Amino acid sequence: MAKTIRKSTLAHVRFDLKNRKVADLKKLFGDLHPADVAELLEELDHQQAQRAYFMLEAEAAPEVLLHLNDLRLQKKLLASLTDAEVAGDIIARISSDDADDLLRRLPDERRQAVIALITDEAKRNDVLELLQYPEGSAGALMVTELVRVNVGGSMRDCVRELRTQAENIHNIYRIYVVDDANVLVGWLRLSDVLSHTLRERIRDVMDPQVFSVQPLTDAEEVSTIMERYDLVVIPVVDDLGRLKGRITIDDIVDVIRQEESEDLQKMGGMEVLDLPYVQTGIFSMVRKRATWLVILFVGEMFTATAMGFFEGEIQKAVILALFVPLIISSGGNSGSQATTLIIRAMALRELTLVDWWYVMRKEVLSGLLLGGILGVIGFSRIALWQEAGFYDYGPYWLSVGFTVAFSLVFIVLWGTLSGSMIPFILKRLRLDPATSSAPFVATLVDVTGLVIYFTIAALFLKGKLL
Amino acid sequence: MAKTIRKSTLAHVRFDLKNRKVADLKKLFGDLHPADVAELLEELDHQQAQRAYFMLEAEAAPEVLLHLNDLRLQKKLLASLTDAEVAGDIIARISSDDADDLLRRLPDERRQAVIALITDEAKRNDVLELLQYPEGSAGALMVTELVRVNVGGSMRDCVRELRTQAENIHNIYRIYVVDDANVLVGWLRLSDVLSHTLRERIRDVMDPQVFSVQPLTDAEEVSTIMERYDLVVIPVVDDLGRLKGRITIDDIVDVIRQEESEDLQKMGGMEVLDLPYVQTGIFSMVRKRATWLVILFVGEMFTATAMGFFEGEIQKAVILALFVPLIISSGGNSGSQATTLIIRAMALRELTLVDWWYVMRKEVLSGLLLGGILGVIGFSRIALWQEAGFYDYGPYWLSVGFTVAFSLVFIVLWGTLSGSMIPFILKRLRLDPATSSAPFVATLVDVTGLVIYFTIAALFLKGKLL
Repeated sequence: MAKTIRKSTLAHVRFDLKNRKVADLKKLFGDLHPADVAELLEELDHQQAQRAYFMLEAEAAPEVLLHLNDLRLQKKLLASLTDAEVAGDIIARISSDDADDLLRRLPDERRQAVIALITDEAKRNDVLELLQYPEGSAGALMVTELVRVNVGGSMRDCVRELRTQAENIHNIYRIYVVDDANVLVGWLRLSDVLSHTLRERIRDVMDPQVFSVQPLTDAEEVSTIMERYDLVVIPVVDDLGRLKGRITIDDIVDVIRQEESEDLQKMGGMEVLDLPYVQTGIFSMVRKRATWLVILFVGEMFTATAMGFFEGEIQKAVILALFVPLIISSGGNSGSQATTLIIRAMALRELTLVDWWYVMRKEVLSGLLLGGILGVIGFSRIALWQEAGFYDYGPYWLSVGFTVAFSLVFIVLWGTLSGSMIPFILKRLRLDPATSSAPFVATLVDVTGLVIYFTIAALFLKGKLL
Repeated sequence: MAKTIRKSTLAHVRFDLKNRKVADLKKLFGDLHPADVAELLEELDHQQAQRAYFMLEAEAAPEVLLHLNDLRLQKKLLASLTDAEVAGDIIARISSDDADDLLRRLPDERRQAVIALITDEAKRNDVLELLQYPEGSAGALMVTELVRVNVGGSMRDCVRELRTQAENIHNIYRIYVVDDANVLVGWLRLSDVLSHTLRERIRDVMDPQVFSVQPLTDAEEVSTIMERYDLVVIPVVDDLGRLKGRITIDDIVDVIRQEESEDLQKMGGMEVLDLPYVQTGIFSMVRKRATWLVILFVGEMFTATAMGFFEGEIQKAVILALFVPLIISSGGNSGSQATTLIIRAMALRELTLVDWWYVMRKEVLSGLLLGGILGVIGFSRIALWQEAGFYDYGPYWLSVGFTVAFSLVFIVLWGTLSGSMIPFILKRLRLDPATSSAPFVATLVDVTGLVIYFTIAALFLKGKLL
């Protein structure tokens, strides 16, 4: 749905809902893609959305439910359906992996009740199998629906199998070849079916070299393998090599989004949430956030120690205290920038350990330039305020200005250097460079920055203010 | 290649390179997937890698080159090839979109020279067309290789076309149906070919409802559309609806990775780099980083103003200055956490504007709990140091402790609230919530945190230290 018509469509829906124009709504919803209907529902308040949902055609409703990003609304809609409705109207109409996702979101008791009500036995068994795999594993991600042919057959058998199954399987990318014990022995492209005669044996046509993963393989590893080898689909086999399901690249997109969230959370200085924000309970969320907040707080306590060490200097020249937040935050900000850049380039494998020297040279130059820019601005600010009479920094304002300017150069350089080198050190120690790097670098630079600042102050102000 | 054998393989390669055992290396490289060979090369120093590269079979070399993540190495290898070699040995063997990527990385003059040397005229025209689209557009992302059939034909024509093209096109997802003017009028699934007789007309079998994009559509929008409508491939058509190419979901994975980098850079407080870190020149990088660093610096200058406002208090109670970095950084850290969580949930559409009140309630509670935890730790630290004699906070140490503890509660609450509400405000104003939010929130909380801290200090220490 084009962005331009969305607002007016939404107004229509609201009007029709209010005036109970059921027929108009049914028509409108029928013309839209389920993803668009889902977005419309999300724009309504939950009560309206619920009423609108129940006007959907039976075929469209499950797809709309699956396309909802607002998980609170999804939960409400599921809660307003009976167990039999969830089993018969929703689960029965969606693929095994979507059913698995949805069932995982239900409370434990309800999940059992719904599963018991699935009438199609094959579906029930598939769902039960998928549910046994832990969240974030290949098993939880795979679909069991696939086209399977026996290695002993001919291409004619293959075409027959395809014709029977083509209806049920949304996207066919590959035909899986198994032996009598269901062990995966090869695969065919759909185009192989066209370029070979029906009399040829599957064994002679198939590609026996198949990358595969196991049900307990981590989803992130599956995504790495698929991206690395340019695969659109990968089969899942058990310990004995028996074919269990397949994972397609569009499911991997969700995994990548999930990884991205985790990276952002790590960079933002917290433990990774297991569930989306709206599904995470307050106590579990506070625990995840408190861990790093406390670690950083304890690290930051050294600033009090460092400041205590220079208490005499502050006593003599209170003016020095005024610039403390400004100076240490600049070090922290430049450190965050550097660490973000390097971690990202490492994650994309643009940089490896051997590149540390190249990065160091680049960052020394960047740090000096950035520090120089801030130093000039900082000095100008002090000179301007002094000359314009906004503030009186005392008779030694020039020395104060130089202290601030030189401190900025060194602290920004130091922030840039630690920010860029710490990821290399963490990686060398086989730790994840992403873990809380940015706030960790900021804390380190805060503490050491104070020492740099007061040392430079001693140099410029000895015999004057100090 | 399994992770366990990688180290020994690498040792082998180094040994063979050193001892010029060319035959062994050729055999080893021949057995590996190009992605694995590329990773091996990246582990070598650039000189070794260059020597190893020239031992690859002519068919494997272009794929290995494309799989290199280390763009500095890729550049070196390209530089050591003649223009004719790049055109004849590399470009001729890869698909149009990969050729486009590679050519964009060459210096302008060299790019022209290489293109002039492409002997296959169709390929040269395809490449020239793709190069005219700006980086990050659908046109630059698409491949021109696809299966096209005329709407006037029968399914028999379709099968014939498939058979001729199956060899040249790596992954066939859809068959595109065009009219005599090459205007896209529908598409077929590969399975349609199997489930219909050869005599049926394409017009009757095809699905006339095709989502498409234009060459100048932004790559991020393409990815949104494909994810939204669960598409594995999307056709690209010009203004007049004429079929130009197709974009597959695996190329979209790269776009998502790119978006992710941009989000991280925005969150890390900098302008988005147009090129990877290793390709960005020092001055262009300093400019990108300086912009936000200066904005934040200017914002942070208000801390000096705020501190100047409380200079009298600091003069009387220097002890207050000691805790300034500790207290404001805690506000900043809690703000970063909150803003990271909310921006992410917004990007995934788990949260929309209507949820602000739900988030606010959740964050008030989180903020109070988190602030409480830090407050207790902060107070204990002061009490412990005082009692153990590590530091003497003076006769009013208890009041100092309470000042620090209560300031932490309020500042963490304030950080959490601003961090979670600012993304809603930015979104309401139709601005991108991601833009530098975390450092921006930290700066805001630094300045306001000082005011909170000194106000609470006045409350607890009036008549004692102040």
